[in-house]
Amino acid sequence: MASGCDLILAARWLATQDDARGVIENAAVAVKDGLVAAVGPRSEVEASWSAPKTLDLGRSCILPGLINTHGHAAMTVFRGLEDDLPLMDWLTKHIFPVERQLTREVVYLGSLLAAAEMIRTGTTCFTDMYLFEEETARAVDACGLRAVLGDGIFAVPQCAYTRPDEVWPILADFAAAWKGHPRIRPGYMAHSVYLTPPDMLVRAYETACREEALFCLHLAETRAETDNCLRDYGRRPAAHLEALGLLSPRSLLVHCVDLDAADLPLIAASGAHVSHCPKSNLKLASGVAPVPAMRAAGINVALGTDGAASNNSLDLFSEMGFAALLHKGVTLDPLAVPAQTALDMATRNAAGALAWPELGALAPGRAADLIALDLAEPGLQPVYNPVSQAVYAASGSQVLLTMVAGKILYRDGRFETIDLPSLLREIEGVAAWVRARLV
Amino acid sequence: MASGCDLILAARWLATQDDARGVIENAAVAVKDGLVAAVGPRSEVEASWSAPKTLDLGRSCILPGLINTHGHAAMTVFRGLEDDLPLMDWLTKHIFPVERQLTREVVYLGSLLAAAEMIRTGTTCFTDMYLFEEETARAVDACGLRAVLGDGIFAVPQCAYTRPDEVWPILADFAAAWKGHPRIRPGYMAHSVYLTPPDMLVRAYETACREEALFCLHLAETRAETDNCLRDYGRRPAAHLEALGLLSPRSLLVHCVDLDAADLPLIAASGAHVSHCPKSNLKLASGVAPVPAMRAAGINVALGTDGAASNNSLDLFSEMGFAALLHKGVTLDPLAVPAQTALDMATRNAAGALAWPELGALAPGRAADLIALDLAEPGLQPVYNPVSQAVYAASGSQVLLTMVAGKILYRDGRFETIDLPSLLREIEGVAAWVRARLV
Repeated sequence: MASGCDLILAARWLATQDDARGVIENAAVAVKDGLVAAVGPRSEVEASWSAPKTLDLGRSCILPGLINTHGHAAMTVFRGLEDDLPLMDWLTKHIFPVERQLTREVVYLGSLLAAAEMIRTGTTCFTDMYLFEEETARAVDACGLRAVLGDGIFAVPQCAYTRPDEVWPILADFAAAWKGHPRIRPGYMAHSVYLTPPDMLVRAYETACREEALFCLHLAETRAETDNCLRDYGRRPAAHLEALGLLSPRSLLVHCVDLDAADLPLIAASGAHVSHCPKSNLKLASGVAPVPAMRAAGINVALGTDGAASNNSLDLFSEMGFAALLHKGVTLDPLAVPAQTALDMATRNAAGALAWPELGALAPGRAADLIALDLAEPGLQPVYNPVSQAVYAASGSQVLLTMVAGKILYRDGRFETIDLPSLLREIEGVAAWVRARLV
Repeated sequence: MASGCDLILAARWLATQDDARGVIENAAVAVKDGLVAAVGPRSEVEASWSAPKTLDLGRSCILPGLINTHGHAAMTVFRGLEDDLPLMDWLTKHIFPVERQLTREVVYLGSLLAAAEMIRTGTTCFTDMYLFEEETARAVDACGLRAVLGDGIFAVPQCAYTRPDEVWPILADFAAAWKGHPRIRPGYMAHSVYLTPPDMLVRAYETACREEALFCLHLAETRAETDNCLRDYGRRPAAHLEALGLLSPRSLLVHCVDLDAADLPLIAASGAHVSHCPKSNLKLASGVAPVPAMRAAGINVALGTDGAASNNSLDLFSEMGFAALLHKGVTLDPLAVPAQTALDMATRNAAGALAWPELGALAPGRAADLIALDLAEPGLQPVYNPVSQAVYAASGSQVLLTMVAGKILYRDGRFETIDLPSLLREIEGVAAWVRARLV
């Protein structure tokens, strides 16, 4: 006799992303209480499980929801704002003057817009570091996504706090408000070795350890960062972190473009993770992170989009495509980052980086965070290997269903938790507000 | 009193791609007899023109249709076929054995699938070089796209002809059948300096001149090509072409990855054009073409996807994104290829490369080849600059209307000239045929 579950989803293909990277044809997944109850051939799943409803997703491929390990959600409000300018002009004349005046409402609306884009394009969990993070948490709570969130920790006065030591009570209040939430985890997000002094870095890391939370920072994003770190501390960024005792499996290092041969074994030995953001690194002319060398050294590399001001998209399908193609061309090795590796970076590896083992693969007992990619689009046909289609050919716009913790957030053009027309009207107002604040 | 036209299209934004790169807000375009009759602010266009119907495309941006200057349409049938392999294994064990057995029917269906993908993703004109090109022409004729087409000219026996001299009557028949077609132009497509001997190159070029048609070939795709050309002819590929007298504004040089400082002024002085295919060059680990240096030398650079076996997509929005981002990261110059330049490469520059001046911009008297990009998607909001959205943030899946020569080929999920469900069923059969022929 079949056991009861809440919903069965069936599709032509399903990529489990389990240890064997099993891809199942004519597959189904049974969902119960927000978790995967079963996954396998449709005939077997339907023989063992009964649900009030079966959704047949046709010629699509079910995948674990993608996980974005780096971003600044509310920066969607700056998407495409005067972006072909020299970096310092762009920052000082356009981004900084507006950022200094940011309000809680703008952060909330920008975060909700980011959430809508991520839900639309198949991202089910993301990591965020910005200002007024409480507002981002409210948006995540409302829209049903999953996230690791924290206010940026740095010694620069801005709209959310003016004296560096004011950040600690903000973080304590945030943790008190959101710890224990089923989908939101507080994280400790230092900005960088250049904007966060050593004592703040250490206190952020120690708090993360005490709270059993993620510790994250931008690291080695540019050659200039390395040069300044050598000047100020006599060590390269990774060595600076190690000297402070801040490299461990709790640490998520974002960018890691400017690594040298000594940095790689240092990071690998510590068990720290890397968030690779290829599009942002290209757009800001930071360079190309040595991902094949990181992988060869044994470092766990995950994928991130960075903020929409420097990408300009939060679509992880596009990011997977860049990760898979870029390193082949730069290293002249057609096997540098295979499609399977790029998909791992956006799923399993990301779950490892966030220490959230219920995510990143579809197997009994894991979270029912999943998406369906519509392979019936002419640009995704024929299908020899759905993983190749997902990485090399797909765009997030071809996602037709997004589910988090067993709840459908998007399906066939319909957002279940966000009133998109109303949000887009409010975003037009935000854009006018931003324009009025440009220098 | 208003003049009559066939249709008025209105949209929130319109990027003309005219000489001034004018972007019009609350715009309209009047279409008459397959041409643009007027373009401007909606109020002005509607005051001067009356049509039986006005299509309001809402919060979208009308753009000239994108032009793909390099591809092998029928290779869609190999999309994602065992693609993470060393290049020679992939070619010799997977692609070549099947290609040798290609039939006219497979080429027709593969070309029609490519056409469906291009129509869906906003490409209105493409250049193609493959085998049984007559079948590709039939597909283009049927689906309403615009194209420059020609059988590959090379001295390698394959399915379409076994002795090199058999290609000339094929080309003559093709020209006789299609010359004068309103949307199809025959082109003379030599394969490369390594598969096409000098006498064939010269005859191809001379035929192109006599027929006032495009002359095209793959050039300097890899370092190995250069090494072999130096060994066999004592000159680098570009110099080899120049010595044979084959560099002129009629010549479209595809790839140009391995150019040196002497090649650049040689190509620039000749007026030859370059088709840049960044994704294919990355995927095949050929390297990164020196596009900023080409532009600085004054070379007209257009964009191409190459075939779906080495991309794996024909979506020019994705290709524009790579072109705009890749060179910034590789040259460490955030201004290397601005968004406007990437859009030019896929429109105006491409029209120049194909010597088809009616294309590539929207202005009175130009062809009514246009697309509408849906900027109401959350990932394309807010809109400060629609050109930035098109290049950095959009995917071709966000195109909601594609028109060629005044005829709507796609709108809101509906293909007007292709029976997609029936085509996808036939493509499943082709995929089975391909699988059965793998070594």
